[in-house]
Amino acid sequence: MMVMSNRIYLDNSATTPVASDVLHAMMPYFRDHPGNASSLHASGRSARSAVEGARQQVAEGLSVDSREIVFTSGATEADNLALLGTALRSTSGGHIITSKIEHDAVLHASQWLAARGYDVTALDVDEFGRVSADSVREALRPDTLLVSIMAGNNEIGTLQPIREIGELCREHGVLFHTDAVQAIGKVDLPMDVIDLLSASAHKFHGPKGVGFLFVRRGVKLTPMQHGGGHEGGRRSGTENVPGIVGLGAAIQLALQEREAVVDRMLGFRTRLIEEVLKLPGTRLNGHLTESLPHIANFSFQAIEGESLIMKLDEHDIAASTGSACSSPNLEPSHVLVALGVPLSMAHGSLRISTGRQTSNEDIDALLDALPIVVEELRAFSPFKVGG
Amino acid sequence: MMVMSNRIYLDNSATTPVASDVLHAMMPYFRDHPGNASSLHASGRSARSAVEGARQQVAEGLSVDSREIVFTSGATEADNLALLGTALRSTSGGHIITSKIEHDAVLHASQWLAARGYDVTALDVDEFGRVSADSVREALRPDTLLVSIMAGNNEIGTLQPIREIGELCREHGVLFHTDAVQAIGKVDLPMDVIDLLSASAHKFHGPKGVGFLFVRRGVKLTPMQHGGGHEGGRRSGTENVPGIVGLGAAIQLALQEREAVVDRMLGFRTRLIEEVLKLPGTRLNGHLTESLPHIANFSFQAIEGESLIMKLDEHDIAASTGSACSSPNLEPSHVLVALGVPLSMAHGSLRISTGRQTSNEDIDALLDALPIVVEELRAFSPFKVGG
Repeated sequence: MMVMSNRIYLDNSATTPVASDVLHAMMPYFRDHPGNASSLHASGRSARSAVEGARQQVAEGLSVDSREIVFTSGATEADNLALLGTALRSTSGGHIITSKIEHDAVLHASQWLAARGYDVTALDVDEFGRVSADSVREALRPDTLLVSIMAGNNEIGTLQPIREIGELCREHGVLFHTDAVQAIGKVDLPMDVIDLLSASAHKFHGPKGVGFLFVRRGVKLTPMQHGGGHEGGRRSGTENVPGIVGLGAAIQLALQEREAVVDRMLGFRTRLIEEVLKLPGTRLNGHLTESLPHIANFSFQAIEGESLIMKLDEHDIAASTGSACSSPNLEPSHVLVALGVPLSMAHGSLRISTGRQTSNEDIDALLDALPIVVEELRAFSPFKVGG
Repeated sequence: MMVMSNRIYLDNSATTPVASDVLHAMMPYFRDHPGNASSLHASGRSARSAVEGARQQVAEGLSVDSREIVFTSGATEADNLALLGTALRSTSGGHIITSKIEHDAVLHASQWLAARGYDVTALDVDEFGRVSADSVREALRPDTLLVSIMAGNNEIGTLQPIREIGELCREHGVLFHTDAVQAIGKVDLPMDVIDLLSASAHKFHGPKGVGFLFVRRGVKLTPMQHGGGHEGGRRSGTENVPGIVGLGAAIQLALQEREAVVDRMLGFRTRLIEEVLKLPGTRLNGHLTESLPHIANFSFQAIEGESLIMKLDEHDIAASTGSACSSPNLEPSHVLVALGVPLSMAHGSLRISTGRQTSNEDIDALLDALPIVVEELRAFSPFKVGG
């Protein structure tokens, strides 16, 4: 009945296994300390102390004030709170700037607002998936409420010039939000020019179902979940104590290990790029150097990405075509389309994403399997490589 | 550093400890099966199978179709999705009926809508906290979009006539939502006349951070979290796989054990009411019989509820004044005010709520401590009992 998970897991941008230290930190809060963090008694105070300890860990990790951290159920909620919470404060509409390669959470939240009378500009990107600060400058209007540009792309890994964009927003008095889901714990974040930042624990070896929105002091949002006034009135709902504790432990672990883990990831990425591009009819999607360390995205001519994933799965390797969120969708990736990748190549994409547990042996196994799988699939393809 | 939790936990309406079988069911999904349920590979399919298994458990528990279950981060989100998701589909405003004793999630979501041009009627209740179906009938208007009346009150336990109210809504073609957070697994729910129902796992020995909204087939909501189109497009965000598995296991356990656990709870409640009302200057808040089995709410003349909680805490007993959500708030409970409890009594409320783990010894300990604590507090009170 139970499907066994893959032995070799190279889909860490979709989600990561919870680190054992993180799980260990969470465990007491399921049974031994079951309190509601809003309760006055010792059980409640124990839960409150755990939640505030985790808030402190997140704040220290980002070098911000703990009162600027709003815990959410994940990054999708955090992105929606940033966009809808900013926009719905205004009753007279307004303008939002984002890019064509944002995560679906930002894209679809902005489209929902567009259907309700807000103006949305989705900026183009270059062939590497970079948004230029100049294009943001040109798009700014007197009624611009928010600029939302992700820190590092979840499908291709490309880093955005968020310091430049943040400074520009600051100059113009416009709020700047960044989806840092893939970037956090991997690259430096210019917190001094960021007003709102989203993250999710399960992308850095914390648990699913918990994330946070950094909200710079003084930034006003209308809450999107109303109730008991939790999180300083910004996000109601009983605090997910074990999840929040796990988030705090995971961010602490990610920052402690960052140098060593990122070094390993960069090594894996360099090796993957070298080896995969030796295969005929392949290309790297994204930027060679201005990239997150853990993501490498390739296209394979005359191959369907989904077939490639299923064939690798037969070799007990987990990888993806792009975002897990849109996996069931057979449309080509909106990110690859925005890069101008030809449709024949956009359909044959493979995202390899590494985690703290990834070993040289995992990369060996992938590089052993890949040429076999690619050849098999091309043998049955109606298309010809180079044709 | 760590605050020790109370030995005697009688605040199960605030939150419950996770049952060991539930935690056991969740554990594999943190590390051994870490996949994203949207991924195509075996790790993803394993997660998907776990999520759909839990959805089936919830659906079977309620005797509804599994496609009618939308997993959320908890009941606050589910309540907000029911209210905002219904109301914001309409661009021309509309009317919502609720009651004065709803949970803050429903109250504050409806107030947020009221500030945005919707009309909200908050119905009065009788001295026991009952909403009458007649008052709903009188409030119905041609532009009524939704009636939201909770199944059982979280502070005083009073059950509402939700079958009558549901039937009335059905007759008038108006959607009916019920917050069943405290009622689920404790009393029968008339699912045939309910269109939307909210619940939260941590109230029935499942984990915090997960809940669901039942959405009857054909009922249309606008999503409030946009993104990858999870949950049939009704609630985006990576599925909290361990949490959802825990929710499924918890609802199954609650229904299996229901008869035995509810019997024990009724015994505890009867004993509590008998014994507490022997103390001078006390009253029962709520209904003697039309009540949830696990909640008993009392008022103590000339005592502040918060002092009572802190004194019981010294005896290692966890209880509450009312809703945990509003514990940090020193206003009298909006529920007790709506019942017409005099302010002097409304400030001195004590909610005892039992769980599956509650023992006779727990109730003994409370009944031993309570007269001592009440006498101590009254000795220092500027008010006189009966004065």
